Amino acid sequence: MDAFLAITTQTEALCEPLQVEDYGLQAMPEVSPAKWHLAHTAWYFETFVLAVADPDYRSPWPAYRHLFNSYYNGVGNPFPRPQRGLLSRPSVEEVYAYRQGVRERICALWDRGSPAGSLAERIELGIHHEQQHQELLLTDLKYSFSRNPLAPAYQTSPPPAGRPETPAAAWRDFPGGMAAIGHGGGAFSFDNERPQHRVLLQPYQLARAPVSNRDFMAFMEDGGYQKAALWLSDGWAELQASGAMQPLYWAHQDGHWWHFTLHGMQAVDADAPVAHLSYFEADAYARWAGARLPTEAEWECAAQALPVQGNFRECGLLAPAPRQVDDASDQMFGDVWEWTSSNYTGYPGYRPFDGELGEYNGKFMCNQFVLRGGSCVSPAAHLRSSYRNFFYPRDRWQFSGMRLARDAS
Amino acid sequence: MDAFLAITTQTEALCEPLQVEDYGLQAMPEVSPAKWHLAHTAWYFETFVLAVADPDYRSPWPAYRHLFNSYYNGVGNPFPRPQRGLLSRPSVEEVYAYRQGVRERICALWDRGSPAGSLAERIELGIHHEQQHQELLLTDLKYSFSRNPLAPAYQTSPPPAGRPETPAAAWRDFPGGMAAIGHGGGAFSFDNERPQHRVLLQPYQLARAPVSNRDFMAFMEDGGYQKAALWLSDGWAELQASGAMQPLYWAHQDGHWWHFTLHGMQAVDADAPVAHLSYFEADAYARWAGARLPTEAEWECAAQALPVQGNFRECGLLAPAPRQVDDASDQMFGDVWEWTSSNYTGYPGYRPFDGELGEYNGKFMCNQFVLRGGSCVSPAAHLRSSYRNFFYPRDRWQFSGMRLARDAS
Amino acid sequence: MDAFLAITTQTEALCEPLQVEDYGLQAMPEVSPAKWHLAHTAWYFETFVLAVADPDYRSPWPAYRHLFNSYYNGVGNPFPRPQRGLLSRPSVEEVYAYRQGVRERICALWDRGSPAGSLAERIELGIHHEQQHQELLLTDLKYSFSRNPLAPAYQTSPPPAGRPETPAAAWRDFPGGMAAIGHGGGAFSFDNERPQHRVLLQPYQLARAPVSNRDFMAFMEDGGYQKAALWLSDGWAELQASGAMQPLYWAHQDGHWWHFTLHGMQAVDADAPVAHLSYFEADAYARWAGARLPTEAEWECAAQALPVQGNFRECGLLAPAPRQVDDASDQMFGDVWEWTSSNYTGYPGYRPFDGELGEYNGKFMCNQFVLRGGSCVSPAAHLRSSYRNFFYPRDRWQFSGMRLARDAS
Amino acid sequence: MDAFLAITTQTEALCEPLQVEDYGLQAMPEVSPAKWHLAHTAWYFETFVLAVADPDYRSPWPAYRHLFNSYYNGVGNPFPRPQRGLLSRPSVEEVYAYRQGVRERICALWDRGSPAGSLAERIELGIHHEQQHQELLLTDLKYSFSRNPLAPAYQTSPPPAGRPETPAAAWRDFPGGMAAIGHGGGAFSFDNERPQHRVLLQPYQLARAPVSNRDFMAFMEDGGYQKAALWLSDGWAELQASGAMQPLYWAHQDGHWWHFTLHGMQAVDADAPVAHLSYFEADAYARWAGARLPTEAEWECAAQALPVQGNFRECGLLAPAPRQVDDASDQMFGDVWEWTSSNYTGYPGYRPFDGELGEYNGKFMCNQFVLRGGSCVSPAAHLRSSYRNFFYPRDRWQFSGMRLARDAS
Repeated sequence: MDAFLAITTQTEALCEPLQVEDYGLQAMPEVSPAKWHLAHTAWYFETFVLAVADPDYRSPWPAYRHLFNSYYNGVGNPFPRPQRGLLSRPSVEEVYAYRQGVRERICALWDRGSPAGSLAERIELGIHHEQQHQELLLTDLKYSFSRNPLAPAYQTSPPPAGRPETPAAAWRDFPGGMAAIGHGGGAFSFDNERPQHRVLLQPYQLARAPVSNRDFMAFMEDGGYQKAALWLSDGWAELQASGAMQPLYWAHQDGHWWHFTLHGMQAVDADAPVAHLSYFEADAYARWAGARLPTEAEWECAAQALPVQGNFRECGLLAPAPRQVDDASDQMFGDVWEWTSSNYTGYPGYRPFDGELGEYNGKFMCNQFVLRGGSCVSPAAHLRSSYRNFFYPRDRWQFSGMRLARDAS
Repeated sequence: MDAFLAITTQTEALCEPLQVEDYGLQAMPEVSPAKWHLAHTAWYFETFVLAVADPDYRSPWPAYRHLFNSYYNGVGNPFPRPQRGLLSRPSVEEVYAYRQGVRERICALWDRGSPAGSLAERIELGIHHEQQHQELLLTDLKYSFSRNPLAPAYQTSPPPAGRPETPAAAWRDFPGGMAAIGHGGGAFSFDNERPQHRVLLQPYQLARAPVSNRDFMAFMEDGGYQKAALWLSDGWAELQASGAMQPLYWAHQDGHWWHFTLHGMQAVDADAPVAHLSYFEADAYARWAGARLPTEAEWECAAQALPVQGNFRECGLLAPAPRQVDDASDQMFGDVWEWTSSNYTGYPGYRPFDGELGEYNGKFMCNQFVLRGGSCVSPAAHLRSSYRNFFYPRDRWQFSGMRLARDAS
Repeated sequence: MDAFLAITTQTEALCEPLQVEDYGLQAMPEVSPAKWHLAHTAWYFETFVLAVADPDYRSPWPAYRHLFNSYYNGVGNPFPRPQRGLLSRPSVEEVYAYRQGVRERICALWDRGSPAGSLAERIELGIHHEQQHQELLLTDLKYSFSRNPLAPAYQTSPPPAGRPETPAAAWRDFPGGMAAIGHGGGAFSFDNERPQHRVLLQPYQLARAPVSNRDFMAFMEDGGYQKAALWLSDGWAELQASGAMQPLYWAHQDGHWWHFTLHGMQAVDADAPVAHLSYFEADAYARWAGARLPTEAEWECAAQALPVQGNFRECGLLAPAPRQVDDASDQMFGDVWEWTSSNYTGYPGYRPFDGELGEYNGKFMCNQFVLRGGSCVSPAAHLRSSYRNFFYPRDRWQFSGMRLARDAS
Repeated sequence: MDAFLAITTQTEALCEPLQVEDYGLQAMPEVSPAKWHLAHTAWYFETFVLAVADPDYRSPWPAYRHLFNSYYNGVGNPFPRPQRGLLSRPSVEEVYAYRQGVRERICALWDRGSPAGSLAERIELGIHHEQQHQELLLTDLKYSFSRNPLAPAYQTSPPPAGRPETPAAAWRDFPGGMAAIGHGGGAFSFDNERPQHRVLLQPYQLARAPVSNRDFMAFMEDGGYQKAALWLSDGWAELQASGAMQPLYWAHQDGHWWHFTLHGMQAVDADAPVAHLSYFEADAYARWAGARLPTEAEWECAAQALPVQGNFRECGLLAPAPRQVDDASDQMFGDVWEWTSSNYTGYPGYRPFDGELGEYNGKFMCNQFVLRGGSCVSPAAHLRSSYRNFFYPRDRWQFSGMRLARDAS
C-alpha cells in the first residue's frame, strides 16, 4: 500500500509545474495529454483491480470506462487516441477527484485484509504501469510544449553545463558464448521479459559511453543526412518526406546548435549523450562510424553485472548529462534509452498476461525495435537489466539515443 | 468608446460558462479556440489601431504579433491555423490581461482627443470584427464540445419547445425588374457590401419561412441522401467520402432524432428551422422540393423593406426556434443563416479596404457561397439587409439553413 | 449522318500518331486515357441513342455499359475515374471494333428513315460531345506525356517561331448597358448556354490580345509568385503546397524558359499567348497588372460581333501562336481558353437536358469558373460566342490563358 | 553463357500471353509493369556488367540508366517507382530491342574469353536477380489484372481441381538444440543468406502441410476477422482501415467463395494451400488455431534435409495446389511462400555485396518479415533451404501463405 500511495502521489507531483491549460495538450496522435495520463493510470486500478475484486462493483464514473481506456479491446471500444486532447471535460479538478476516489477504494481493499494472489499481482503491475506513464507524461509534454513558439519551460533551472569525466570512449570486450537473458527470479517483471532463456552470442565489443552530441555533430558535418548509402531504405524515404536534417528539437541559430528541452531552449551540450534519435538515425550513424547497434541480448549480457545506477528522473536534471563521477555503469542506465538492432518480439515460450491484460504487451510485437537502459526521465526503481522498451523506428520524441557495438576482431 | 467597451465586455461575458480547460479546444482546423478568439480580437486593435496611431509604439507583447495573426500576410507570417489549439501558453489569465492592456491603451487614445479619420474607421471596423468573432466563438465551441462523448452544455436551460405561429409556409411574390443592392449610405459596412449597384431580376417567389426540421426529415425519409440525381457532383462525392446521412450534430436514437446543441443533446424540434446544412444539402433539398435557392440579390431585395428583427443572440435561446409572435420579417433575420445560390465575389467596382486590411475580405472571393440574414448566435446590431456572410459549400458547423425560392410562374 | 461519320473519323485520325502503349496512359485522376475517350464517345451513342431507339436493344458489349460510363449515375454506377488507366483490356483493337460496331448500328437507323425528334437531338448532342472529347484527348495526352522524362512528341514538326503582327496590346472600349447573353436561336447549343437572358453591364474595356508569355515572364521576374498580396487565399495555399513557381510544363534551363508541348520540349515563344495557367495564376497576374479578369457576360458581349475564327485545331499548330495576319477577332477565339471571373452557374431559368442526360452539365455548377473562346486544340466548328467551358480554379492542364479587362474610366 | 541466355529467354517467354496494352499496367505503387521488369533486368546487366567490364563503355541507351534504375542511389537518382506505369515510351518493341542489344554485348564478353572473378559473380547474380523478377512479373501482373472488372486471364486453362493425397495435417517433431543455418558452401547465394552460423533452438513441431483454404474458411466462419484479441495491434488497425474480411482476391458470390487467379475468376479449391495472406492474417490465424508461426531458423532446420521439390512455376499450374503424389517435402517448397515470425535482419557478421550492389539487400532490413520456401510461380532453380524472401507485414499480393508451428510439449 505504501508503494501504491507513493507512486500515485509522485505522478501528481510531476504535474505541479503545469498550468491548467497545459493538461489538455496533444500535439500529435502519438502523445497524450497529461490529464489523460492522470486519468488512465487511475482507470487501470479501477478497471483491473476494483472491478475485479468486487463482482458487484458499480463505478461512480461509468463514462470513464470508455473515455480513458487506452487500447484494451477486451474492455470495450477505446476512445480514439488522436482525440484525447479534445476532452476538456472532465476538468482537471474532476480528474484529480477521480484519482482520489479510486485511491480511497484501493486502500479500502487493505482494510479488508491485504490483497493476495492475482489481485496483488494486478496492483503491482499497476504500479509499474504508472511508472511507465510518469515517463510518458514528461516526454509527451516536452513534445507538445515544443510546438509553441513561446518555448515554455517545464523546469526553469537548467542543469549545469557538463564536464566529461572520461576521455574519448573506449571499447569494452565481451566473450560471447552461451548466455541467459530474460527475467528469471520471483521479483516483478513484465511478461515480455520472460521466460529467461539461453542465447548464443559471438564475441563482441560495446562502447563505454553513449554517442555524444559532439559525436553526432561530426556525423552531421560530414553530410551524414545527405548520404543515401548510410541509410535504411525506409529511413531514407522518411528523411525525404520529412526533410529532417538534425535530431528532433534541434535548431541552428547564429552558428550554434540549440535544442528544446524541459528547461526551454538551451545550447546543446557537446559532452552529453545525443537524444531524440529515430532508429533510422541511430542505424545510419553506426554505419557511418564503422560500427553497428548492439542486439538486445548483447546489451543485456553486458548490463547484468552492473548496478542499476545513473542519471534517472530522481536526479532532477531531466536531461541527458555527461558521465557522472560516481557512474560505475558506463552510462548503460539512465540518460538515454539505447536503440538496439533487435526487433520487438516474444521470447521463445512467451506467454502474455492472463485475460484482458494479455493486451498489455503482446499485441505490439510487430514493426518496433527494442530500446534498453532507461532515460533521464525514467523512475530509477522502474529499471532493470532485463527491461525492454519498444518504439517504432521513426519515433523520436522519447529520450532515445544509442551506443555503438562491433564484432570482436 | 462606449461601443468599444461594450463589445469587448460582451465577448468576455460570452466566456463566463467556460472552464479554463475549454478555452483551448480546437476540434478541427476550421474552428479556433475560445482563447484564440479573445486574443485575436485584441490583436486587431493592437495591430491596426495602436501600432498605427503611434509610430513609436512598442508592444509589451511582441510575440503575440505572430501568434494571434489570423491570416494577414502583410503583417507577417501567421501562426498556422490548425495548431492554434496547441498554445497552452499564454494562459487564459494572460490573455485576459492582454485584452485589458489593449483596452486601456485604446481608451487612452480618447484621452488625447476623440480618434478621427481612418483611425476612427479602424476602431469601428474592429468593433464589427469582434462581433463576427463573437458568433464564431460560439459556433466553434459548439463544434468542439460535440466531439466529447460527455456532450457538455454551454447553457443548461434549453429553450422551450416551440409552437409554430404560422401554418405551412406560403410564398411571397416579388416582381423583379431593375433593383439596387449593396450598401449605399454613410453608415458602416464591410467593403464586400459596396458599391451599391443595379441588378436585373426576373419575377420570383420566396418561401415565407425557412425550411423546418420537419420538412427536412421528409426529405431524409424519402431517401434524399441516397439519390444521386438530387446532388451536385462535388456534393455527392463529399457524401460518399464522409458517409453523412443527416445534418451535422444529428443522431438517431430509439426512433427519434436528437441533435447536439449548446444545451447538450436535445430532441429535434420539428417546427424549428433546420440548421447545420452544407450548401450541398441545401441545394439537394431545394431540388427535391421542386424549387431552388434564392440568389443573394433576390434575398436582399426582399429583405430591404423588413425590420432587422428576429431570433438573434440577445434573445438568449442560442438555437433556431419556430416563428415568434412578434416576427414581422418572415424569419429572414436571425435563427439560421440562409444559403444563397450566389458565389461570393466582388461587386462591380469592388475596392478592398486600404493597406493591410485589404486582406480582410477580398482574398476569400473564390469557391465560397454567400449566406444571408444572421443566426440565433449573431449579435443583432451586426446585421443588415446588405450583410454578406460566406462559407465553403461543404461547411456545416455554422447555423446554416435555407429558404426556398422559385421563378414566378 | 455525314456529320456523325466525319466526327467519329476525325477522333480516330487524332490517334494516328499514337503507339499502342500510349492509349492507356492516365497520369493523374483528372485526365483519361486516349482509349477511354475513344470508347466513351462510342458509349454515348450506344447508351443514349441505340438503347433508346430500340427498347429491345441487347448490347453485344454489356460490360462496357459500366466500364465506359463517365459520371452518369442514372445509367448505373460508373467505373472509378482514377482507375481508367488500369483497363488494359479491352484492347485498343477491341475498342476500335466497338466504335465500328456502334457506328454501323447508328447508320442503320438512317436506313430505317432519318432519325427525328429527341433521337435526332441526341445524335446531334453526341457529335458535340465527341468534339469536346477530341480536345480532352489531346490535352490529357499532353499531360501524360509530360511525365515521361523522354518528353515524347505527339507531332514532330513544331510550329514556326512567331512574329507578332500587332504592337503592344491596346484596349477596346465597350459601353455596357443592357445586353443579352446566352444562346437564343434554333441551332444547337448546350443546355448551359440557355436561356438567352438580359444582363446589365457597366462600361468596360478588354485588352485586344491575350496576355503573352513575355507579359507573364515580367510578372515572374517581378516576384509575382512570391507576393502573397497578389493571390487569392486558396491560390496562395495551393502555391505553398505545390511549390509551383511557373506555369505548368515550364522549365528553366541554361538561362532560358522551355516548356513541354505536343511537339516535345520547345523554347517558350515570348510573343505567343501564355497557356496552362490556373485561375489563381490568371487572377494574380491581373491584380499585378492593375487590371482584372472579364466576367463571362463582358466577354460574350464583346465576342458576339466577331467572326468565330482563329488558331483552332484545324490550323494544325496545336500550340498557341502570336496573332495571325488574318485575325479579325483580337484572338478572342482559338489559341487559349480565357479564364473569366464568373463562377459556373445556371443562367436564370436554366433547365437541364431531360432524363439521364440531365447529368451532362448541371451537376457541375459548383466551385468551377467559366472559360471562353476555345483553344488551339478545339475543333473550330465546336465554338461560338455563347460557348461556356468550365474548370476548377486549380486546373492547369487545359490550354487555359487569359485576357485583361478593366472598368472604363 | 547458356544459363544467361536461358534465363533471359524464359523471361520473355513468360510475356507471351500478354497483349501490348498489358505491358504497362501498374495498379499500385508496389507493383511494376511487365515492361519495366523486362527493361530493369537488362539494365542490371548493362549497369553492373557491361559498364564495369569496359571503362570506356558508352551506352546506346543513356536515358535508361535513370528510367530503369530500381533503387540504387549509388547509380543515380532512380525514376520514381509509383510512376513506372506512365512510361508508354520506350515502347514494348524498343524494350525488347534493348534486351537484345544488352544480350549481344554480354555474349561478346565471352568471345573475349570467359568472364572471371567479380565479373563472373555479377553475371551469376544477374541471373538470380532475373529469376526474382520473373516471379514478380507474374504476381504484379496478377494484381494489376485483378483490378479490371473483365478479370483477364493470363492462362486460360485452369489447373485441375485438387484431390488431397494426405489426410488432415499432422505434426512433425524436431529436437531443437544447436544447429547451423545460413548458406555455407561455395555455390551461389545472396549476401543475406550468409554467413552460416549457429543458432540455439528449443524442441518444436511443424505442421506437415500448409494451412489450406478449408482451414482458413473455418477461421473466417468463426468470426476470426472480427475478434480483436486475435490480431496484432498494427494488424487490427490495418483491418479497420481497409475493411478487409477475406484474403486478397477473394469474393463471395452465390454462397461460394471465388478468387481471382492467373486463370481468371475461379472457385476456391478447399484443399489447396491458402495464399495471399498478410503477415497479420497469418499471425491471427495461428493464434486462433492455438499455434504460432515458425521462426525462420526452425523452418530452415526442418528444410535442410528435404529435396527442393514442389509445385514451382515449371509445373505450369501457376496456382497453389493440394499435395502432389510425388511430394516428399511436406510442401515446404513451392505452392506458397510461408510467413515466418522472424524479422528480416542481417545474420551475425553479415556483409553486404561490395560497391553499388551493397544496396541489393541490406538496406531493406527493417520492418519486413521473412518468408520461406518459394511459390507456384517461383523458378525451381532459384530456391534452396537457406533462401530468404521478405515483405512488409501488410503485403498480400505475393503467393504468401503459412504453416503452423508449436513448441514441443
